[in-house]
Amino acid sequence: MVQYGFKDLGYEYVILDDCWSVGRNSSGYLMPNMTKFPDGISGLADKIHALGLKVGIYSSAGTMTCARYTGSLGHEQKDADVWASWGIDYVKYDNCFNEGEEGTPQLSFDRYNAMSKALNKTGRPMLYSMCNWGVDGPWNFAPTIANSWRITGDLTDTFDRDDPNCPCEEKEGLDCKVPGFYCSLTNVLNKVVYYPSKAFPGAWNDMDLLQVGNGGMTDDEYVAHFSIWAAMKSPLIMTNVLAKLDPQTLSILQNAAVLAVSQDPLGSSATRRWRYFVNDTDEFGRGEIQLLTGSLAGDDQLVLFFNAGTQERTMNASLAEVFWEVAPRGTAPQVKQAWDIYDLWKGARMSNATASAIIAGNGTLPVNMTEIGGGGPDGARRAYAQVPPSNSTALMGTKVGSVQPSGTFTAHVKPHGVAMLRLRAQSTRKRDEL
Amino acid sequence: MVQYGFKDLGYEYVILDDCWSVGRNSSGYLMPNMTKFPDGISGLADKIHALGLKVGIYSSAGTMTCARYTGSLGHEQKDADVWASWGIDYVKYDNCFNEGEEGTPQLSFDRYNAMSKALNKTGRPMLYSMCNWGVDGPWNFAPTIANSWRITGDLTDTFDRDDPNCPCEEKEGLDCKVPGFYCSLTNVLNKVVYYPSKAFPGAWNDMDLLQVGNGGMTDDEYVAHFSIWAAMKSPLIMTNVLAKLDPQTLSILQNAAVLAVSQDPLGSSATRRWRYFVNDTDEFGRGEIQLLTGSLAGDDQLVLFFNAGTQERTMNASLAEVFWEVAPRGTAPQVKQAWDIYDLWKGARMSNATASAIIAGNGTLPVNMTEIGGGGPDGARRAYAQVPPSNSTALMGTKVGSVQPSGTFTAHVKPHGVAMLRLRAQSTRKRDEL
Amino acid sequence: MVQYGFKDLGYEYVILDDCWSVGRNSSGYLMPNMTKFPDGISGLADKIHALGLKVGIYSSAGTMTCARYTGSLGHEQKDADVWASWGIDYVKYDNCFNEGEEGTPQLSFDRYNAMSKALNKTGRPMLYSMCNWGVDGPWNFAPTIANSWRITGDLTDTFDRDDPNCPCEEKEGLDCKVPGFYCSLTNVLNKVVYYPSKAFPGAWNDMDLLQVGNGGMTDDEYVAHFSIWAAMKSPLIMTNVLAKLDPQTLSILQNAAVLAVSQDPLGSSATRRWRYFVNDTDEFGRGEIQLLTGSLAGDDQLVLFFNAGTQERTMNASLAEVFWEVAPRGTAPQVKQAWDIYDLWKGARMSNATASAIIAGNGTLPVNMTEIGGGGPDGARRAYAQVPPSNSTALMGTKVGSVQPSGTFTAHVKPHGVAMLRLRAQSTRKRDEL
Amino acid sequence: MVQYGFKDLGYEYVILDDCWSVGRNSSGYLMPNMTKFPDGISGLADKIHALGLKVGIYSSAGTMTCARYTGSLGHEQKDADVWASWGIDYVKYDNCFNEGEEGTPQLSFDRYNAMSKALNKTGRPMLYSMCNWGVDGPWNFAPTIANSWRITGDLTDTFDRDDPNCPCEEKEGLDCKVPGFYCSLTNVLNKVVYYPSKAFPGAWNDMDLLQVGNGGMTDDEYVAHFSIWAAMKSPLIMTNVLAKLDPQTLSILQNAAVLAVSQDPLGSSATRRWRYFVNDTDEFGRGEIQLLTGSLAGDDQLVLFFNAGTQERTMNASLAEVFWEVAPRGTAPQVKQAWDIYDLWKGARMSNATASAIIAGNGTLPVNMTEIGGGGPDGARRAYAQVPPSNSTALMGTKVGSVQPSGTFTAHVKPHGVAMLRLRAQSTRKRDEL
Repeated sequence: MVQYGFKDLGYEYVILDDCWSVGRNSSGYLMPNMTKFPDGISGLADKIHALGLKVGIYSSAGTMTCARYTGSLGHEQKDADVWASWGIDYVKYDNCFNEGEEGTPQLSFDRYNAMSKALNKTGRPMLYSMCNWGVDGPWNFAPTIANSWRITGDLTDTFDRDDPNCPCEEKEGLDCKVPGFYCSLTNVLNKVVYYPSKAFPGAWNDMDLLQVGNGGMTDDEYVAHFSIWAAMKSPLIMTNVLAKLDPQTLSILQNAAVLAVSQDPLGSSATRRWRYFVNDTDEFGRGEIQLLTGSLAGDDQLVLFFNAGTQERTMNASLAEVFWEVAPRGTAPQVKQAWDIYDLWKGARMSNATASAIIAGNGTLPVNMTEIGGGGPDGARRAYAQVPPSNSTALMGTKVGSVQPSGTFTAHVKPHGVAMLRLRAQSTRKRDEL
Repeated sequence: MVQYGFKDLGYEYVILDDCWSVGRNSSGYLMPNMTKFPDGISGLADKIHALGLKVGIYSSAGTMTCARYTGSLGHEQKDADVWASWGIDYVKYDNCFNEGEEGTPQLSFDRYNAMSKALNKTGRPMLYSMCNWGVDGPWNFAPTIANSWRITGDLTDTFDRDDPNCPCEEKEGLDCKVPGFYCSLTNVLNKVVYYPSKAFPGAWNDMDLLQVGNGGMTDDEYVAHFSIWAAMKSPLIMTNVLAKLDPQTLSILQNAAVLAVSQDPLGSSATRRWRYFVNDTDEFGRGEIQLLTGSLAGDDQLVLFFNAGTQERTMNASLAEVFWEVAPRGTAPQVKQAWDIYDLWKGARMSNATASAIIAGNGTLPVNMTEIGGGGPDGARRAYAQVPPSNSTALMGTKVGSVQPSGTFTAHVKPHGVAMLRLRAQSTRKRDEL
Repeated sequence: MVQYGFKDLGYEYVILDDCWSVGRNSSGYLMPNMTKFPDGISGLADKIHALGLKVGIYSSAGTMTCARYTGSLGHEQKDADVWASWGIDYVKYDNCFNEGEEGTPQLSFDRYNAMSKALNKTGRPMLYSMCNWGVDGPWNFAPTIANSWRITGDLTDTFDRDDPNCPCEEKEGLDCKVPGFYCSLTNVLNKVVYYPSKAFPGAWNDMDLLQVGNGGMTDDEYVAHFSIWAAMKSPLIMTNVLAKLDPQTLSILQNAAVLAVSQDPLGSSATRRWRYFVNDTDEFGRGEIQLLTGSLAGDDQLVLFFNAGTQERTMNASLAEVFWEVAPRGTAPQVKQAWDIYDLWKGARMSNATASAIIAGNGTLPVNMTEIGGGGPDGARRAYAQVPPSNSTALMGTKVGSVQPSGTFTAHVKPHGVAMLRLRAQSTRKRDEL
Repeated sequence: MVQYGFKDLGYEYVILDDCWSVGRNSSGYLMPNMTKFPDGISGLADKIHALGLKVGIYSSAGTMTCARYTGSLGHEQKDADVWASWGIDYVKYDNCFNEGEEGTPQLSFDRYNAMSKALNKTGRPMLYSMCNWGVDGPWNFAPTIANSWRITGDLTDTFDRDDPNCPCEEKEGLDCKVPGFYCSLTNVLNKVVYYPSKAFPGAWNDMDLLQVGNGGMTDDEYVAHFSIWAAMKSPLIMTNVLAKLDPQTLSILQNAAVLAVSQDPLGSSATRRWRYFVNDTDEFGRGEIQLLTGSLAGDDQLVLFFNAGTQERTMNASLAEVFWEVAPRGTAPQVKQAWDIYDLWKGARMSNATASAIIAGNGTLPVNMTEIGGGGPDGARRAYAQVPPSNSTALMGTKVGSVQPSGTFTAHVKPHGVAMLRLRAQSTRKRDEL
């Protein structure tokens, strides 16, 4: 089962938002809004499929959707059947107006499992995207019935501003009763760090839609946003008006080296090694730094320095820290190796002058995604299914240094930014020979 | 379905408190206390209806009411039927002695839904006011079955004093096990800020009965109280002895410009933009300031500065902050407009001398509610159903200034008081043309 | 239904602890340990009844009692029947080994209600004392099915020492998952303050057995202990070896003026007006002071100053504070009255020399309980059923001063001690005439 | 029912990890992986039994095990039957992929009780080791259905490092929603202190597998680890590669004086008397000291000083503190006795030179477990079933001093280490004669 794919310069699924239906017909089947969609959803899906893309639909495990359109609670099989008949490939299933059927994992599981079984019964493969905002701990009960599950209230387009509409912070997310919305990037990050181990290929923690390019964050913040989502293996779903995508945004969204982390065949989510609060806080009184690391296919290792302070800083990590999860206190065999360090963002971003030149037609993006893997969507899929070759700048980024056994390395990290590094062992000896 | 109305100098519903029944008759129907109500509730309702008012009744989703009179749990249909037969228009349904039927949203939903279905089955429109004090999160499960739901323990007539009888503060209200009573104004405010998005027309967060004029707060505090309840779209239910209403209290309760916010056709609750603790704390050690904003019909915007410090202060807000919820960091199109600022309280209050003069028959209230909308209750209803015209002082307050695009504006705010402003765009261009 | 009574120099109930049974017979009835009780429980009850006392028994709403004797879960009716047949008057019902039947109020309610219904079905009046340690909030669900309910883990014989065996402190008691034991006096007090309103005559918050005289606290601490239990209307159950009761302990346990508060006909539990932490902390790092007040029959008012600091201090209260619960900020009519102040402990305690003299047979206790109300248990019951006359030192304590309208009064309070005062209005005018 | 036993130089059970099965056959019975286990589990069990050892198996109360092999949920009887048929003696039963059947004690109890009943129905004695990580409070519901229950997320091989994969700290463990893994030694200790009273012989708090000798802690930390697990009566399960056991590790794991505490016939878990934070914190910002005490058979008393600071320190305890749990403030009769003090670790550890000598064949371990109790496993069992004689250095450690009635004694404690003492009364008078 595919988490998400990539095709040309867009992502693989086109997902319809709420508001597509006008209720049920006399047989109980959902009816599309024919004013908005003159060909119906079926006709629309045909057109999307003809473009080589897949199509997603939206409903809620309640009597109404969040925008108060018809919900699917109690109509799971009919709704799954009609979606299958239309050629739907992806179902986002929300949590509004659920008639109080929550409060224990069992109540939530049963309600979401009803749709899971209905989808399976149709026989048509449809990616099942649970959107119950972390209520009752979907990380515990969803992996056997869904492909992804939202872990928090809705992300908004802010870096770290608190909002009472998103009342739960950090550990409060373990049992949040009002997940809400207007959650910031750091709010979501500081919740997902408790669940990386719950994810595995085909069953992912969903940190919510990407905000990259929507205007509420700086470019450096969007780079951090995209890097973190990729490191945590969250689904990557664009929310941009495609016609208005500017080169700066595109150069983030199509950084193939970061996408290769997201699509890494091992499917292992990064974990947090440490976190410290810093004094260079922003207008909202927040400032912190973190180190995240993760395993990649081919025995590579991901290192993500996150600087949520307002000063540029040099951050460092020892191999002992980077491989602590393998074994504590520097006892992991990987610590005894030398590693090359690749920076996944170096050269991937542009000056405003360069961006303007591209818009004017006088320049090219750092990476042309259509050429990855030999071109075309199958090329990209093939590329991401492999360990990237060391000489592929597009997939590996730029080699920026190395670290000796038991050594420590550094990176300069912009304010509200990240340094995202891939470590590759210099030696080709197998690890268990060390 | 009507939240509340206005008629002459009183509000539309007369709501009976607990203690009106003497148990059930042999057929299982509730019997009124004929000593207190010689005409029965039916006769009383007729008289109230003859005055052009509506009548509310009270019971509990338990075996007893809170004052230990007969409760309705297990007798929902018979009780709904008898109320309908008496001509009841409003049912307040409490949570005492509920036989342990709570602890998950489903248990609470099922218990309250039993009465909802019973009321609907009678065929008589009755406003259903759930009073389960926020237990099990009614903001999540009540909107489809009730017209309003209490969100906290009982409000008392204090501004910010903590009381162990109201143990849950702020976020603890998200899952409060003992909501209690003796909750202060700020206690309730600091809980409702998590739920504004849960309300919509016909389904409201209930912050509890108004205490305006009951003596435990200062006039400035009552102004803050009334302003906040209106901004949050909480039901406005007076608890005054009508015969003893003094002009100072009346000039608060009948401020039509504030009521126009409460009754705004858009029905959108205000949200909190920021909150800071201040050093000018009171005898209970508390001091804070907040900015609340909200959308109003006609693209107007509500701005409420709340000063819970003990010093008068000048507070300010930028258009970027005021429209942050539309889009962060000043990117909302509204920020690019110029706005006129109307103060909803300027001139609405009186000196004690003026109040004394009115009591002596030598003066008039700042606003004569009976003249709103051309006079009579239908006039008031018509007035509130529209965007108020800029030249209506009664509905718009007094124009006190303006703010340029991307600008910042200020207001002087009394200690334990508010400044309540309505912003109206100077330009008549449609917003999406900006 | 009687909470507890008083007879001669002992209390009314003799309550058997755990460990009295040896399992069930072939018909499923509980069998007493005939070695410990050669006449069986039935014979023992007869003897206790012959003394004019009542008899209590113990079991658990689980498969085993806490000491792992036979429990009553699933055998409620047979056990209630056999207890009734033996002449049992009181049932303490514990919570050990409950097969996981808890976690929502409904699960706990159903389990405890099974015994409630069984007891009622026997037709024999038996006081039902629920001992589920506050789990799932018995203050909410127990009042309709039981006479009292424990609110915390077990009290131990310490004043304020924390112990990990009693992990929940203060607000954590609202939803404590491991109530435990070794809870200190202040731990229990700082939990009960959230529930005074839940109690009413015949339905009481149980703060657990008295430790007075058991050696782990000072005499002043025991005075505080006994005063607080009486003020909160907790059941008063002695745990002393009667034969070893010393005069100092007896002079606490038989202070009739304090017992008159406990047995006050109004049955209203005291509430906390304020609490402050102080710097004169003890070896466990704790120090605080509190003011508790409560309504008494006859419009008297209870005032309890609690000094949990290590220094003697003068504490004060204004009438505005003392009657805050009636109406805030001094607006209660009671504030406009003058009051006489009676100290309930003045003269009730003795020097060690006096105590030694009594033991030697050369002295008398400050109060001879057998003479209260004209002598005998009926006398005591009659005395407590009335508002005590002002000239009864035994029931009123000693008049120590008065306070003028809107005035403030003081009391010297020993370290880890209390001053317990009864206020009686000087005027005989009815309050509503003020 | 045996908690664990001891045989020669290894422990009694050999426990298979996850990953031993390849699913179910057409009759629904679990099938072993015949590649890994050519003789099947049955054949393997025969071989293990022939060595005089017992054999444990692993499954999960879910649809899959944690490593995503076949789980037992819904197949309890068939799985119990097949394990019994293979001669299994011990079942570790995990909590992964449980279909949301948790969230109240009842949901968890029912799920784990299904396997308990299935195991009992087989008629074969199998130790039932519940591994639900403390979810829903197994300390409350497991004692009647299992022999042990895990109380936290998985222990990792670190002393006190926090990790977001183990989000719950200390009291949060009372109701932890994401127990996780990578929990440190102090994290687990600071949770188990709330539950010592829940354990009794045959029903134990399980602090998770021993990490002694795995490399992530220092030797002193491992000594602390082993001492604490023994004091708390946690199951002691080695995770070492037996062929690589070095003398330093062996001298910890086979300290018979510590094992005698673990195996003490009284079966009483130690409790925490006090805990203080200290300033000599480590790289993770942590530093604290604790005193644990416990009752041992023969009226002996266990005293464990725990130094989690980074400085060696002298710690002290008074007899009043050591026997506080018997009665507070020095009123326990034990305080009036004089006691001899035995150090259970003195002489039990070795210099590196000694360890090297042993590896080279030129030296012996401080204790030869095979000689305990006269040799052989039955000897060890017999030895631990008795109160150890004062002259047995192997079982009593080394006498290092004494303490007079009401006295205080001290011990030097290494950083991140313990002093583990057994107190034995000098007088032979029975305690109740004091």
